[in-house]
Amino acid sequence: MKDIKTYMNELGQQARVGSLALAKANTNQKNTALENIANALQEKRNELLKANKKDLDTGKKNGLDAALLDRLELNNDRLDSMIDGVRQVANLSDPIGEINDLKYQPSGIQVGKMRVPLGVVGIIYESRPNVTADAAALCLKSGNAAILRGGSEAINSNQAIAECINQGLSEAELPASAVQVIETTDRAAVGEMITMPQYVDVIIPRGGKGLIERISKDASVPVIKHLDGICHVYIDEYADFDKAVGIAFNSKTQRYGTCNTMETLLVAKAIAGEFLPVIAESYEEEGVEMRGCSITRDYIPQAKSASEEDWKTEYLAPILSIRVVEGVDEAIAHIQKYSSQHTDAIVTEYYTNARQFMTEIDSSSVMVNASTRFADGFEYGLGAEIGISTDKFHVRGPVGLEGLTSQKFIVLGDGQIRE
Amino acid sequence: MKDIKTYMNELGQQARVGSLALAKANTNQKNTALENIANALQEKRNELLKANKKDLDTGKKNGLDAALLDRLELNNDRLDSMIDGVRQVANLSDPIGEINDLKYQPSGIQVGKMRVPLGVVGIIYESRPNVTADAAALCLKSGNAAILRGGSEAINSNQAIAECINQGLSEAELPASAVQVIETTDRAAVGEMITMPQYVDVIIPRGGKGLIERISKDASVPVIKHLDGICHVYIDEYADFDKAVGIAFNSKTQRYGTCNTMETLLVAKAIAGEFLPVIAESYEEEGVEMRGCSITRDYIPQAKSASEEDWKTEYLAPILSIRVVEGVDEAIAHIQKYSSQHTDAIVTEYYTNARQFMTEIDSSSVMVNASTRFADGFEYGLGAEIGISTDKFHVRGPVGLEGLTSQKFIVLGDGQIRE
Repeated sequence: MKDIKTYMNELGQQARVGSLALAKANTNQKNTALENIANALQEKRNELLKANKKDLDTGKKNGLDAALLDRLELNNDRLDSMIDGVRQVANLSDPIGEINDLKYQPSGIQVGKMRVPLGVVGIIYESRPNVTADAAALCLKSGNAAILRGGSEAINSNQAIAECINQGLSEAELPASAVQVIETTDRAAVGEMITMPQYVDVIIPRGGKGLIERISKDASVPVIKHLDGICHVYIDEYADFDKAVGIAFNSKTQRYGTCNTMETLLVAKAIAGEFLPVIAESYEEEGVEMRGCSITRDYIPQAKSASEEDWKTEYLAPILSIRVVEGVDEAIAHIQKYSSQHTDAIVTEYYTNARQFMTEIDSSSVMVNASTRFADGFEYGLGAEIGISTDKFHVRGPVGLEGLTSQKFIVLGDGQIRE
Repeated sequence: MKDIKTYMNELGQQARVGSLALAKANTNQKNTALENIANALQEKRNELLKANKKDLDTGKKNGLDAALLDRLELNNDRLDSMIDGVRQVANLSDPIGEINDLKYQPSGIQVGKMRVPLGVVGIIYESRPNVTADAAALCLKSGNAAILRGGSEAINSNQAIAECINQGLSEAELPASAVQVIETTDRAAVGEMITMPQYVDVIIPRGGKGLIERISKDASVPVIKHLDGICHVYIDEYADFDKAVGIAFNSKTQRYGTCNTMETLLVAKAIAGEFLPVIAESYEEEGVEMRGCSITRDYIPQAKSASEEDWKTEYLAPILSIRVVEGVDEAIAHIQKYSSQHTDAIVTEYYTNARQFMTEIDSSSVMVNASTRFADGFEYGLGAEIGISTDKFHVRGPVGLEGLTSQKFIVLGDGQIRE
């Protein structure tokens, strides 16, 4: 194989060519390509399973742990949902070319904005091979060329999926350069990809915090970062009791390992005596370890003592820190100090407290009377999610097709010149 | 003075505090601050002129050229327009807190987006002292704290303006940390400011290409870049003759030194024989030097020969390159190859050519039958312009208040939990 720098440069140049073709492609052509890809994945099901078996065997030989092998595995169910996912993207409405806010100006020109692709999107992910199909579909639909780089342990699965993608593109008369899956497992390829802004317009790393921090640090291409999810639920003095119990329980226990899971529960002093013993019973039954401030422990004697470190921790586990606060002001102050600005919720029936919380909490999702677990592209009606952004620049929160686009100004005139 | 790193870190920390206060400030409080600033500038007119005189004297002593001294100068007219500018920003509608697209989802939650400030904006500019007031006003209105760094030759003028800003803020009970003007002329301050993402959310350099490239290269904070303006006008075979002449003339000659001035004129072969001699006469009268392809020179014998280099040049001067093309496809191909993706226009009455041009030209402004000189925040109805972005990420084209904001998701529920 030629050296990595040359290889990645060629890939980048081809991606630019691919992106021009995709930017011009109409909705029907893109949807046809997506349908073709879904059909190819269906037809080549056995080849895909075989390629995946090869990865799994190598993985076992190399001593990958059970969790990683599970993420790596493709089976018939997972293939079905991967194929469904591609078809769903075909059914989403096309964001490209949409014109907004077209308005007449005093000079007589009409000015509006037209949605356009970003250009070339680089996606870096870990072991799950389904990301190859998901990410390719979302980039394609949003008119962006994609360069995909999966985990080295999934190389055979990813190449097999790449073949189906290429087949689907070529049947729709779109160039193979529209979606390229990196063929080498050499780590230097990532280093090249994140430092070629001339060919790549944005990088989306999908994986653990370590991966994302490493990439952000070294990248000269903009990165859509998804860092910590230290999420809070604040139970206000004026909360509806049943809603409070339901939301506090669901936000923690519906899934432990997700970024939108609550990690700290804040409770107004006036309701703590009534609320904490009830919710504690549910947490105990569910096996959630509680760590509380001293007032919390007055009401929940079995809770451990929470340290300063606890307020800063994303457990991603059945552990919860709990703090009793004076009221909405102290809750907001705690969240401003410790939140990772991902998702924070208030439970209250009191209009002014809800309004204050919504205005002053600066997180990518701010909720009133709903579980933090709703912070998700599908639940938000985006149709699909290519990632979540904990940044404010360009895009914030769950990222759907629109996050992969930009807007250009369009000006329609009738011969106007500037005086 | 303490060392620059410590100084800038303190400035950054204070800016974060200031940004919290500004994010909470309501529309009335922000407008009051802006009115107060305008009044303070009015009242301290003589002090401002005195401080500016000091800068001008130092500048003359240091041998600054006439153009730079002109940019540095404040006089009564310029002060008036600076004060008017601040009042105009007060009259703009407040972008912060605006809620868009609030829609019910199948789960019963309502999901929408609320516009929020970015946080802290760093502005780096050159000699014009009016930028200090302009930039402060736009950041303030959009709820962002600002750190401003003007040219060292304008230090006394900028500090005098800063005093008026501080007075205006304090009268409106907003902290002085909301707008900070760097007090040192040490260049190391810029180096610090663009590498402290923990305190600064975006950098906007306003000045020449050299400044912007230097800053982008070294920054670890996102930069809104305004690079070249190599703008094109394509006169289609189906152009209205009078509109074509008006737009081609205005796009070049209305002002030579601006980024949205046309640098290359493309003309469809079928109309070239009729069009070129007429427009050439106007350009000649105006003293515009023409450099053409060989066909152009058949019709305009006095034109010089254009080289490959000409198609890549932003003249910012009374020089124009001209090329005859087969039709819209060749015009688009030329623009895709040479345009800096700033502003490009087509003149045509033919619907399908206009539609193709709008779709396929990927520039921050794409125009039909209008002068490229309209590419401007005021002309686009943005109210004011803090800069122009030649990037696609986050914001593209003229940047108004909205470009200084982000959107957070808001979720309104009724006790919903996730199944």
